[in-house]
This record gives sequence, structure tokens and C-alpha cells, in this order.
Amino acid sequence: MAGKKSTIIGKAQKKIDGIELVTGRARFTADLRFPQMVYGYARRAGIPAGKIKRIDKEHALGIPGVLDVITASDLPGPNLIGILPPFDQPLLAEEEVRYAGESIALVVAETRDIAKRASLSIVAEIEPLEPVLTVDEALKPEARKIHPHGNITFSRKLIKGDVEKGFERADIVVENTYETSFQEHAYLETEAVCVVPHGDGRITVYASCQSPFHIRGHIAVNLNVPASRVKVIQAYTGGSFGGKDDVATEMGCLAAIAAIRLNRAVMIVHDREESIIGSNLRHASRIHYKTGATKEGKIIAREVKILLDGGAYASESPFVTMKTLIHAAGPYNIENVFVESTAVYTNKTYCGAFRGFGVPQVTFASESQMDELASELEMDPLELRLKNALKAGDATATGQVFRKSVGLVKTIQVIDGKRKHVQSKKLQDEERWLYGTGFSCLLQGISNGAEGIDVVGASVQVSQDGSVLVGVGLSDMGQGSRTVFAQVAAEVLGVSMERVTVKQVDTESVHDSGPTIASRSTTVGGMAVLKAAQEVKNSLVKMAALMFNTREEKVVLKDGFASLYEDDSARIPLDKVATAAYWNGFPLMNLAFSKAPDANYDHQTHQGDIYIAYNFGTHMMRIRIDRYTGKVEVLKHIAAHDLGKAINPQGVEGQVEGASLMGFGLAHLEEVLYDRGIIQNPNFADYAVPGIKERLPTETVIIEDYNPTGPFGAKGIGEPPVAGAAAAFANAVADATGIRFLRLPITREVILEALRGKQ
Amino acid sequence: MAGKKSTIIGKAQKKIDGIELVTGRARFTADLRFPQMVYGYARRAGIPAGKIKRIDKEHALGIPGVLDVITASDLPGPNLIGILPPFDQPLLAEEEVRYAGESIALVVAETRDIAKRASLSIVAEIEPLEPVLTVDEALKPEARKIHPHGNITFSRKLIKGDVEKGFERADIVVENTYETSFQEHAYLETEAVCVVPHGDGRITVYASCQSPFHIRGHIAVNLNVPASRVKVIQAYTGGSFGGKDDVATEMGCLAAIAAIRLNRAVMIVHDREESIIGSNLRHASRIHYKTGATKEGKIIAREVKILLDGGAYASESPFVTMKTLIHAAGPYNIENVFVESTAVYTNKTYCGAFRGFGVPQVTFASESQMDELASELEMDPLELRLKNALKAGDATATGQVFRKSVGLVKTIQVIDGKRKHVQSKKLQDEERWLYGTGFSCLLQGISNGAEGIDVVGASVQVSQDGSVLVGVGLSDMGQGSRTVFAQVAAEVLGVSMERVTVKQVDTESVHDSGPTIASRSTTVGGMAVLKAAQEVKNSLVKMAALMFNTREEKVVLKDGFASLYEDDSARIPLDKVATAAYWNGFPLMNLAFSKAPDANYDHQTHQGDIYIAYNFGTHMMRIRIDRYTGKVEVLKHIAAHDLGKAINPQGVEGQVEGASLMGFGLAHLEEVLYDRGIIQNPNFADYAVPGIKERLPTETVIIEDYNPTGPFGAKGIGEPPVAGAAAAFANAVADATGIRFLRLPITREVILEALRGKQ
Repeated sequence: MAGKKSTIIGKAQKKIDGIELVTGRARFTADLRFPQMVYGYARRAGIPAGKIKRIDKEHALGIPGVLDVITASDLPGPNLIGILPPFDQPLLAEEEVRYAGESIALVVAETRDIAKRASLSIVAEIEPLEPVLTVDEALKPEARKIHPHGNITFSRKLIKGDVEKGFERADIVVENTYETSFQEHAYLETEAVCVVPHGDGRITVYASCQSPFHIRGHIAVNLNVPASRVKVIQAYTGGSFGGKDDVATEMGCLAAIAAIRLNRAVMIVHDREESIIGSNLRHASRIHYKTGATKEGKIIAREVKILLDGGAYASESPFVTMKTLIHAAGPYNIENVFVESTAVYTNKTYCGAFRGFGVPQVTFASESQMDELASELEMDPLELRLKNALKAGDATATGQVFRKSVGLVKTIQVIDGKRKHVQSKKLQDEERWLYGTGFSCLLQGISNGAEGIDVVGASVQVSQDGSVLVGVGLSDMGQGSRTVFAQVAAEVLGVSMERVTVKQVDTESVHDSGPTIASRSTTVGGMAVLKAAQEVKNSLVKMAALMFNTREEKVVLKDGFASLYEDDSARIPLDKVATAAYWNGFPLMNLAFSKAPDANYDHQTHQGDIYIAYNFGTHMMRIRIDRYTGKVEVLKHIAAHDLGKAINPQGVEGQVEGASLMGFGLAHLEEVLYDRGIIQNPNFADYAVPGIKERLPTETVIIEDYNPTGPFGAKGIGEPPVAGAAAAFANAVADATGIRFLRLPITREVILEALRGKQ
Repeated sequence: MAGKKSTIIGKAQKKIDGIELVTGRARFTADLRFPQMVYGYARRAGIPAGKIKRIDKEHALGIPGVLDVITASDLPGPNLIGILPPFDQPLLAEEEVRYAGESIALVVAETRDIAKRASLSIVAEIEPLEPVLTVDEALKPEARKIHPHGNITFSRKLIKGDVEKGFERADIVVENTYETSFQEHAYLETEAVCVVPHGDGRITVYASCQSPFHIRGHIAVNLNVPASRVKVIQAYTGGSFGGKDDVATEMGCLAAIAAIRLNRAVMIVHDREESIIGSNLRHASRIHYKTGATKEGKIIAREVKILLDGGAYASESPFVTMKTLIHAAGPYNIENVFVESTAVYTNKTYCGAFRGFGVPQVTFASESQMDELASELEMDPLELRLKNALKAGDATATGQVFRKSVGLVKTIQVIDGKRKHVQSKKLQDEERWLYGTGFSCLLQGISNGAEGIDVVGASVQVSQDGSVLVGVGLSDMGQGSRTVFAQVAAEVLGVSMERVTVKQVDTESVHDSGPTIASRSTTVGGMAVLKAAQEVKNSLVKMAALMFNTREEKVVLKDGFASLYEDDSARIPLDKVATAAYWNGFPLMNLAFSKAPDANYDHQTHQGDIYIAYNFGTHMMRIRIDRYTGKVEVLKHIAAHDLGKAINPQGVEGQVEGASLMGFGLAHLEEVLYDRGIIQNPNFADYAVPGIKERLPTETVIIEDYNPTGPFGAKGIGEPPVAGAAAAFANAVADATGIRFLRLPITREVILEALRGKQ
């Protein structure tokens, strides 16, 4: 069906909402207006640790236009948010403050300005505690416990083979410690939530969010109402990257409580500062790698110890920890692996989901170490990677064996084929510029896998006019998944893209599909759409067969018609078929449920089948560095990824370019800076996020090694390039400068200082 | 499951939205507000027939605040509405005006007042045509054709046995002609529609309506957009009774076109006059009955000729015509039946769906004739009815044989048992008052049956907290079907009513379920909910069995717990089961599709299986008439209906009381009066609708003859009492006065005049 004749699958498609988005016609949450809508603004703690003695809201309540001030004692439910166990995070801090950006009260007023001003009039007596600001401090035996259960959020070990014996057999061992820093999601649209009470006990929540089902669940718990009375609609969302999950839940709960108390619609929109200080960041990390290899370059042992700074609350630290554990060995076939990964609490903004989910951190470290090993072995870096690359039939670090869709070798080969051309442009001896080329290989697990459960609901409805409505429980936050879902439905039902509409997520219309994470939209979500569309197709084919007076097997749906395989000229417009099907009682709507196969996984050793597929990739980055200023120019960036099947190649390019730029930001520009627990650069003047001028000259190479667990063979691509670009950049800088930088970001200033030190 | 232990099914339940409705918290369409919302107001023709020469909108457009004036030439699509073939109705009259209330233009302005005023500034040159005002005129060969295909809207014959031979064998034949007049739906809330454009090609329609899928389909056609981009949400609806179907479609299309043209939300709300002149009425009728019986009272032949005044457009005239055809023989086992029913066009407001759907008209005539026959035979009216009553195994007029759920005899017997007590209170000779008792029997087909297709979609979703969300494609317009659906889901899933929420209809969430008509909500809709709930129950039971480490058959869900049949003390709260089920990948949402069995029906003779069930009923009405003023007092009204199973007895009582009062209005008070094609009483000062003072002293007797095609054995009850009460009233008046009135309404004035004539 998706063979060479398809004009839908594998063909570049405009984003179905592209025109609306670029013309500004799409309505984001902050664009919404409801009668008598009021605004919420949170008062934040302002200090990283302390005991709350008193919160006096009288003065704030006296300000004209202020309608309500809500503190922890006003909450109707258990005052508990957090996406995962241990659910250690309060909606509003009650006794103790654990990070400076933590909300302690919500002011609701007629305008946002009044609410913001009034929030500063709240008198909060908070007795300061000595903040625990680093992982090292937190892990000291005498450290103050940030949570009753201590300062370790989550810690796990992965054990494959016998790493000690592996090192004994190794001819060469390299070892180093790497660090990465906090990164901000920096989406264009800040977080926003609007809650509309219906006066009859039901509420509708419009949110710029990643996981509407999380919001629904937490509102139900915190408001002590049945979840069935809470409807969450994901409004158009201008980026999320993992960021609009916990915080959207927090904002949703606060707005919902206020909406119920006042019986008015309540809008909460974050400004940039709130967005940075009050929502999760990417985990900073310190990672120790030790790699043993034979003199021929075969890696036989790898030991990795990972410390993640998770900030004040768990958020998704447990899953990020697992993800680092599973990916730390890299995309290599290594017999003996030991990884220990630990997330630690500190009195800083909590860290959680962020595109890549721990993989960029370990990939930077792992791929730096690969280059160091290649250097020790005096071996070409790509040759070393190729020698150790995972192939179909090999066991991953968790011992999982994929028989299909392990296209890493092809990505290395294609990069190898292109590098000579790129490197030949090098002008090695030009006085001002230092030229360098970096490579990286990576893998990234697709789907929630054994970390959780992976179910997605999708609905497909064909109207009597033959137009198609698709609903999926996963959010399109800009990544283009609605377009992919439309393609899957259009392909199955044989209609043009214009005839397909894909809904924003609405928790009432589809099965709870969990969070939109783990690059799983295309794979697991696409499978759900495929199943639902096929069911409706069956109805249409049955009806058409009756109309043609033939057997169902002879009917094909394409180009908006039902026709016969053998006789293309006999055809009936799909609206006629759909109308007839309706009046003959054939179902024209289906709600399908896609579930990733049960994982067989040992959570003690972290051995077993964890994901339904991996995306594999190889990146090459060619740079030059101005030896006098440290300025880095990326001359060429090639990202080759095996993604099974590119359903929308244009969308794939967009994802590869965007994710690579995010990796580049992590590697070169971005760092959330703290001073005694207070973020120093909560704005885009001081926090350097890549802008349009930093856009990378990325060439995307699509490798399609058919994945049997995805629709039309597809695997996700949303996250993997972050890790690839970040690691390739670090290796390119090392190649250009001869200096191995062990900490991200490797900024211009860092490079310049190192070059000066070297002189 | 619904056995004697149930605390849900068969128990009186408060309406789940009752509190919201009586406290005014429920938001109706006219209560909605959207940013920059504007108002539409239609200009109407004002004369019953004419040729449109010119519509000059310049002056109207010049009025400050007027944003747009839309006439037929501005429409982007085919300018076509109408629920059924022949689709003869334009959205806006273009060349010819066919009734005085017909819309010829829509004015859109910043306020409704401005729009209304501006509508009068439109200069409409309409060349009057001689209006065709009566059925007799319309049927004359020389009559002007209101539509190109002539003045007959729809005409069908039902032929069972040989009616001529039947009459030959009859010992006695009675014959008469009866008439009924136009009735207005007179819902508390007038029609209202609000269309919100989303700026991205999608629109959302909020409507006080009966059939959201009709609105969606017509908007798609008239705007020339895919139906998948049109979402229709049925807002709280304050009554419909068949009325908010065509007109809501018209208003929806007009508002949608305006909303797209202006890119602003557009609200159209009818005032009472618009509601009466501009939306369908109940068909006026003239019905000739001829009934032949043996001297023992066995009816052996019945011939009925029905003429329905359908007004200017077809609307649902075809289905109403069929309904009269099928029900004209009454609930009796008659060997030879001939019925001819014809709907005719006239230049009056179109007639269409109205609670009872033709059955009240024929039941009034049929039951009047039954009393006339009883009188001729000198037989007790109930005895005559009992002798001829349909029983299980008998063939209906269409030859359909029901083996189960034919409870007519029981309804007659229960009335017979009660009448002595009621009649004993009669004070026959009191000078001022004339006492009388009337009886009627009736049947009313449940489901769309062979008239159309009967499919309903329902979704049931259980959240991790165990709360239940139900969605059904049928509208609750006040009849309480949401409560019934909640009961079905609560019963199946073993939760309390408070844990169940039932959505307003949203066309995106469920299968196109057709119009909410034909008393089919409980039966066909309830079956869909039952199916969906059972699927989700299966998931919960599977999970609970795993948790109990037992077999599924041993698990029972009740009172919000999963427990064991054999050991009630072992139980797990349903939220724990639901959460575990979610995390183990068991589907917790299902979209079910309920389809009435295919009808085996001959549309030439109208013989075959048409409905999935019939509701049967017997009414008795005891009245007294003030001989000096004609004033009628209803002393007692008993309505006994076989409805299979009363899922919510309180809801059944509400339906019986409300429908009976509507029948009483039809029989005694209500008549839309025309003068030369212009309605003379388009307001509640001049149109007499029963008010709270006219509330009948109705006693509802529920007979439960289990219906295998409905959930828990239920059959619908929404419409049948209209016919029963109207017919019983007419017979009571005849009994009291000794005068047979052949035309409804039998008003106080009519009675008084007849009494004077008799003297």
C-alpha cells in the first residue's frame, strides 16, 4: 500500500497547520478569551531553601482588582503534583521551600498586571535554611536532607557481562570525567493554561502542554473531583521539548482551583522569567567513563558512573536516570558493561524531561571517549565506531537483540563516504582559522518501553462526504506529528491530505495515551491511527464491493475514489461510498488502541527487552575556530539517521535541523547559571539560545531500515539528533584545537581561554 | 446484573444535570460569549409566495454597526438544506418565496438590536404570487406548482390483506373524517446557534439542537468544506420535541457562513416570533377512517386516507407520512388494512418532526372511531379495544410479528381495574358540570426502523481514578437521556451515579448517530452505552482477576469496588483496579456502535419488519365540563405504558406527564392560526400553550414487558403519551357532551358553541 506508488507516505508534505501557524491565525492558549476571564499569577519563594512561617495575604487581597489569593492551606486536595512516583512535589509549598522559583501562592485578579503586582504584596515569612546547592554537597553523609527520604532521587545499576574481567582482558583503557550543565527548553511560546468552569461541575482546561492526560489526572486529585468532569484540550503549542509537562500540570491545577472558587475562567500565562525559573530544566551531569579495548579496537568493557543534578523535586528524574543507564554504552556491541546512574536532589529548579532525555549527556561523554580511544589506538574515529557498531542480531547494553531495523552501519558508511569531500575543503594552514571535524554515533530508544507503559488511543471518523477526522492522544507541540497522522490516515483511506483533519488532543475523545515523550508519536501513535483507519477502510471497502457487486479483495481506495484493482476506470467517489456505508449501517468511526509489546525486562540488572526500536545515527560536524576570538563557525553538518521510514521527509528534515541546533546550543552556548541557588540569567538577553543566525548548515541523510513495529516501517526522529550534534561539536572542537574539552557548553570564551593557556 | 439487587437501574434517579438546570448554572447557547462575537438576524419574506426581483442591501450595510448582509447570491455552496430527500429547501430564498417566514437575507452586526433593525432596512422587491394555502387547493389539477415536481411531497400506500373483502364480511361499518391543526413546539428556550471560527479552517458550532450531525453535514455542503473541519457541540438545550432540527441546520449554516466571512464568532438567537414563524410545525391533517367489524366486535377491515398539510418544504414529511401509514390501524390485530397517506405542499411554514411524528393525529382519529364503533356495537369501549388488542405473536399492520414485549393487554387491564374507582367519583347529575371519561389505546414504533438507518455510537472511558465518562451521539434536550445513559454505565461498571459524567454531544467524539428522534435514545442509544461499558468492564475484570489471582468469572464490580462473588469482604477500590489496568495496558475506553437489526421491509406495500419494538399504552382521562362556559377540568388522567423496563422511573413519569400535557395542548388548546398565509398568533399571548396551571393530574402506570432489543429490556417513552392523551381527551369530551368532535383542538369555545347548538 505504501509501495512506490504512494503520493502520501514518503513524500514531502507541508505541515497541515503550517499556514495557520506562520500567518498567526492559529490561536494559542494566551490568545483565548472567555467572558469574565481573570488572571492568575504565582508568588514564588525567592530563596532556595527555607521554612515557611507565615504567608500573609491580607494586604494583597486589599488591592483593587484582586479577587483571591490561594495558599497551600486553601487547597481542597492533597497538594501533590509530580508526574511519577515518588510524587514528592507540592502544588504550592506549604512548610518548606526547596527552590527559589517555587510557587507559594497564587493571586487571582481582574488583570495580569494587578495579579503580578499584588503577588509582591504578599508578606511571606520564610526562615532561610542553608541551601544544598551541588551534587557533592547533597551526597555528603552529613548533608541536610532536602526530602525526608534523603537526597538521592533515584539510583540504578545496569550489569551486562562482567566488566572487571573485561578490563582485565583489555589492551588499552581510557578513562575520563565529563560534565554538562543545565539547559532551558527555550520554547518560543511560554507556558499558558486557561481553565473554564461550566457551572455544572465540569471544567474545560485549555493548555499549552505536552501531556493533557497528566493535567487531567492531577486536577482530579488536587480538586478532589472525578477525572471524568475535567476535560483538557491541548491548544496550539509553540514548542515543549519535554518542558510543558510538570509545569502545565502545576498551572492547570492552580487555575482550576481558582476557577472553581470564583466560578470564572482563569488564565495563567508565564513570562519568560517564570518559564525559566519555575519549570524544569535539563539535568546537569557529571559522568565518569572508563573504556577498555583490544589493540585492534574492539571494545570489550565499559564502565560508566553518572551523577545527575535533579534539582528540588523528582519530576522525571527516575526515567531520565534509566535512560542514561540504558544509553551510556553507546550504540556499540560491548560484551561487558556496567553503568550506575544516580539522580540527586539539590535546592535548585527541578530537572525533568528534555528532548533527548539524558541521552545527549551520555552521548557527549561516550563519543568524546570514543575519540580519545581512537586517538590512543591511532585509529580513524569512524573506523573505530564501525568496528564496534551494533548490527542486526547483536545484543544492546540491556541484552536486547533486534533482528531488523539496526541501520547504524549504513549511517556510518554514508558519513564516511561524504567526509572526504567535506574535509577536502579544509585550508589547514590558514593563519587565523583552526579547522576541525568531529564525528559521533548514537542510538536513542523509541517508545516508553519498560520505563512505563506504552499505549496510545486514536480515532478515525469518516463523514458522509468522505472527509476524514483523526484524533490521537498525543500532542503536536510543533514537531509535525499531526501531519504524520494525517498522512497515515490519508494513505490508508486513499484520500488527499486536504480531506484529512487532525484534532488537537482532547482527553475526552481518546484513550489516555500517556505523555507525548520518547519520540513515540510517529511509531506508537502512528500505529494507532493505522489500526483505526484500517477498520474504517474495511467498512468502506465492504460497501464499495456491494456497489460494484464484486468481492472486497478487488476494491482499492485511492485518490478519493473506490475503484477496482483490475479496472481503474470503474470508480465511485468516496463520498458516495461513505454515504451509502452510513445508510447501510457500516461503522465509519473507530477508536483504536495501540500498545507496544510487553517488555520482558529485569529492573535489577536492567537486562531485557526495553524498547520497540532504536533510532541510530551518525553525525559529522566540520567547524573552524577563530584563534584570536574563539568564535566557532560550523561549515558543514551532516546528520545521517536510520529512522525506518520517513513518512514525511520534510518533517524529518525539520526535526533533524531543530534537534541538532538544540544539541549545538547545549554544546556551545547554553547554560542556566546559578549563584547561591538563584538563577542569574532568566531571560534571553543573558541566556544564549541559538537564534536564526546560528542555524546550522545541516544536511539530513535519511536511512530507511524498515522497522516492523512502526507504521509503514517508521521510527521516531524527534530527539536523537540533539545528542548527535552536541557530541560531534565537542569532537570537532577537539579536532580543531587539539584540546579535549570535558565540559559542556564549550563556549567561545572557554575555547579562547584554553587556546591562550595552550600558547 | 440488573436483577433485584440493582440500586441504579429501575430506581428513581435525579436528573444528572437537574441541579444545574434549575439553578440556572447550566449554560445555554444564548449564554455563551466569545471575544468579538457578533450577531446575526434574518430578514424574512413577509409574504407567503412571490418572485424575488431584487434584494437591495446597501441601505442596511450603511447602518453603523452592521458588518455584513448575506443573500443567496453570496453563498459559497449549493444553497440547500433539508434533512431528507428531496432536499427541496434553500438556505436563503433565491428566486421564489414559498412561505412568509422564509429567510431571504442575514444581517450581521455588532449587536442583535442593530442587526434586527437593519434587517428591516433591506429593500426586498418580491412580486407576489397567488399563494396556495390549503391542501385542497394544492391538489387541484390547475393548482400553481409550489415546487417544480408539483404539490405532492410524498405519498405512500400500506396494503395488508384485502380490505375490500374485509368490508364485505363486516357486520358493521363506521366511517368518519377527522382533522387536526398546526401545533407549535413551544419549547422554553428558543433556537440559538453560535459559530466560532478557529482561524485555521476549522469551526466549532454550539447549538441548541436536536441533531448535531445534521448541522455538521449541511454546513459542510453549504460552505463547501470537509465535514471533518466542522465540529458541532450540542449545548444545553431547553426542549426541542422535533423542532430544533431543520431550523438549527438553517441557523448553523447561516452563522457559519457569516463567521467565515468575518472571521468572528457569530450568534443567532431566535425570538419567539421567529421561532414560531420560521421553524417547522406539527402537520395539520385530514384523515378519513372506515372500520368494519363483526357484530361480536372483531375488527376485520380498516381503511384510512390521510392528507397532511406539510407547508412549503419537505422537511421530515416523508418520514411523518410513513409513520402515519404504519400507525393508522392502531394497536390492533386487523387482518385487512389499507392506508394511504399523502403529504402536500402549501405556502405555509413547513411542517416536520414533532414529538409523536404523525402518530397523535392518526391516534386521535383512530381512537375516536373506536369509540364510535363501540357505541354502534353497544359495547364497552375498553372491551372493544381488549378484544382487538395486539398480543405477542400477532401481526401488526405491516405484518411484523413480535414474540416478546407486546404489553398492550396489560395496559388495558390495569386501566380497566382502575376505572371503576375513578368513575365512582362521578356526580352525574350535578347541574353545572358535565362528566365524562375517555379511553385510548396506542402504539408507537421505537427506533428509526425501515424509515432510515438506526445506528448510534457511544463511548465509555474510565479514568485511572475509576470515574466514568460517557459520550453518546444522541442529544438530551431535556428528556433525561443523559441520566439514563449514566445509569446504564454505572450499572455495568458497578459505580455510583456521582462517578459518571455524560458529555454533551460533540460530533467529533462519536460515530454519526443520526437524529435524536423516534423515542430511540434509551433503546438504541442505551444499547450502545451498554456495549461500550461492557468492553471497558472486561478490562477492569481482567485486571482485578490478576490482582485477586483468580478467574475472571469470579470477579464482580459493584459499589465502586472489584470484589469476589463468593467473598464480598475481599475487595479492591475501583480506582486501584483502573490504575493497574492502565499501567498494564488494558484498554479503558471503548467506542461502541449500536445498530438496530436490518429491517426486512417492502416499501411498495409497507409490509415487513419495520421497528425494533413498539411502545404500547392505554390512557384514561376523566373530565368535567362547565356547561355554561365550556371550561374543561381534567379530574384524573391515568397513562399506562408498556415500556419494557423503566430504567429511571422518575424520568419515565416526567416524560409521561410532559408528553401527555403536550397531547392535551394539541387536543384542547393549541392551534397556529393563519390568515392568507400569515401566522396570526406568533406569540404566547395569542397562542395558547398549556402552562403550569393546566398541568394534568397524571398517574403513570409502568408496565414492564421485557424488550430483548433494549438495554435491560427497555423501550422508549418520549413520544407515545402525546397520542394517548390527545385521543383520550377527545373521547372524554364526547362522553361528557354526547357530541363527537371531529377536529382538534376541541377548545372551550368549540365545546360551548356545540353545547349551545345542541340545546
